[in-house]
Amino acid sequence: MTDRSSIAAAARRIAPYVRHTPILRLDDAAFGVPVTLKLELLQHTGSFKPRGAFNRLLTTDLPAGGVIAASGGNHGAAVAYAARELGVTAEIFVPASTPQTKTDRIASYGARVVQGGDAYAEALAASRVRRAETGALEVHAYDHEAVLDGQGTVGREFETDAPDLTHILVATGGGGLIGGVAAWYAGSAAVVSVEPFGCPSLCSALAVHCPIDAPVGGLAADALGARRVGELMFPIAEAFVSEAVLVEDADIAAAQRWLWEHCRLIAEPGGATALAALLSRRFVPPEGARVGVVVCGGNTDPSKVI
Amino acid sequence: MTDRSSIAAAARRIAPYVRHTPILRLDDAAFGVPVTLKLELLQHTGSFKPRGAFNRLLTTDLPAGGVIAASGGNHGAAVAYAARELGVTAEIFVPASTPQTKTDRIASYGARVVQGGDAYAEALAASRVRRAETGALEVHAYDHEAVLDGQGTVGREFETDAPDLTHILVATGGGGLIGGVAAWYAGSAAVVSVEPFGCPSLCSALAVHCPIDAPVGGLAADALGARRVGELMFPIAEAFVSEAVLVEDADIAAAQRWLWEHCRLIAEPGGATALAALLSRRFVPPEGARVGVVVCGGNTDPSKVI
Repeated sequence: MTDRSSIAAAARRIAPYVRHTPILRLDDAAFGVPVTLKLELLQHTGSFKPRGAFNRLLTTDLPAGGVIAASGGNHGAAVAYAARELGVTAEIFVPASTPQTKTDRIASYGARVVQGGDAYAEALAASRVRRAETGALEVHAYDHEAVLDGQGTVGREFETDAPDLTHILVATGGGGLIGGVAAWYAGSAAVVSVEPFGCPSLCSALAVHCPIDAPVGGLAADALGARRVGELMFPIAEAFVSEAVLVEDADIAAAQRWLWEHCRLIAEPGGATALAALLSRRFVPPEGARVGVVVCGGNTDPSKVI
Repeated sequence: MTDRSSIAAAARRIAPYVRHTPILRLDDAAFGVPVTLKLELLQHTGSFKPRGAFNRLLTTDLPAGGVIAASGGNHGAAVAYAARELGVTAEIFVPASTPQTKTDRIASYGARVVQGGDAYAEALAASRVRRAETGALEVHAYDHEAVLDGQGTVGREFETDAPDLTHILVATGGGGLIGGVAAWYAGSAAVVSVEPFGCPSLCSALAVHCPIDAPVGGLAADALGARRVGELMFPIAEAFVSEAVLVEDADIAAAQRWLWEHCRLIAEPGGATALAALLSRRFVPPEGARVGVVVCGGNTDPSKVI
């Protein structure tokens, strides 16, 4: 079970392989409250995903067939990177919607990239057919305890570096990141989920009290376009996610532009989604709040941002 | 005189207006030693310059004619920003070589931008003609004690956050940043100057033991293209700059690409110049060194980086 203890163990395990990413404290008038960004887009491979990937690979025996994963792109890059660092081969299945920036990145780490299918769920199905042939280790993008524990180390670092925060905004796709972060805080800060209207996997699940298929589309679909949230994260979300907010694609694009104009940061759509909730006032922090925002990925072509 | 005491006073004075920028610790094999980046490109206006600008404006009476400055671009943006925050008007003179990204940024803060002349030195001359008419306060880009004190706060923060560093690499133009940083460390860490071969203002001065005109050209000229280093910084450099390294434009461009590929950071040429010395091995750290690198600006069009 993912909790503070398993996350602390993951942090020790992956420390030689991942960056402790910095925070940036902002007091810009645009927010009305102090905001602290967790710059997880500066992580190896340009997203938080290596945390879960390394923790998964470091807690199992790696078969001769190497590792296999399906991904919208960022998880694939992380698995490819981790596999290279740990000396095993990797095959990564991505849907047709994965942008070139991400397929290039995966290939740059020496992995074999297979592109096909409309969305992440189809890539996952294809990867499982292939895995039956090769015997490779499946590294699920979010629905595995070791992955949740790894992603939870984002929360652990954030609390260490900014112990004063009252609210933590996290973008949700399959829910690995927010599941890990919510398990870390366990109610000691309000963890707020932010999703695009185009892929509302956690909002849909919370409405019916179980993971359920949701639409997949819009600007951030390559990062947040899991069709449904993980079975393992869902009880954590029910217990410890205080609120689930939806934002428009236009809010996300505006947040990307804000990060460039005011912080010279290039975030991908999924990486700017949490901040979009704050800038668009779709999440309005209460008076006295001190808000943390995870900027979780930067794998995009900057010309699409500015 | 700029020293630890005057820099500490500047830090207290400007704290409400500037960001305490984060560090990013790297252990990438490319360096051979642990490297810590000071992400000063995340500062307001996209460079370190607001530190000196605010300290200058906060230590004098501001005349009705407002403030005036000459700049390659970043100092102008900082003065424009500081003037707006403090409620005075600003006129900024920039040379023809200043990129659109920077003139746009200056104008976005409400300043009047006057563009003309080949290089910073001509813009400075033009600004002084104008100042005689308006009585505005001149905010020199580097050769003023309040400006040196303000830029020195970069060193103060860096030492606070990474007290273990043995070497600090800083790009040099007019020398405000390295002068302030070297005054802060005062020999307790080796402060290394990095300049492009195209504008070697400090190397030239150190060779003849006084500030002297040097060529101005190359990729980073809009940020590092002061024709000569400041009178005030020069004795500090003679006392506390341990080494002055020159790099090629190709080294700078490679460092910009490295920062994008490995850290998802967009640095301008002047912002990547210090790192270029390390990546190109034009500065080879001794065994056991722990190297700090100031990434001092990000005001560029990302399409010129990648």
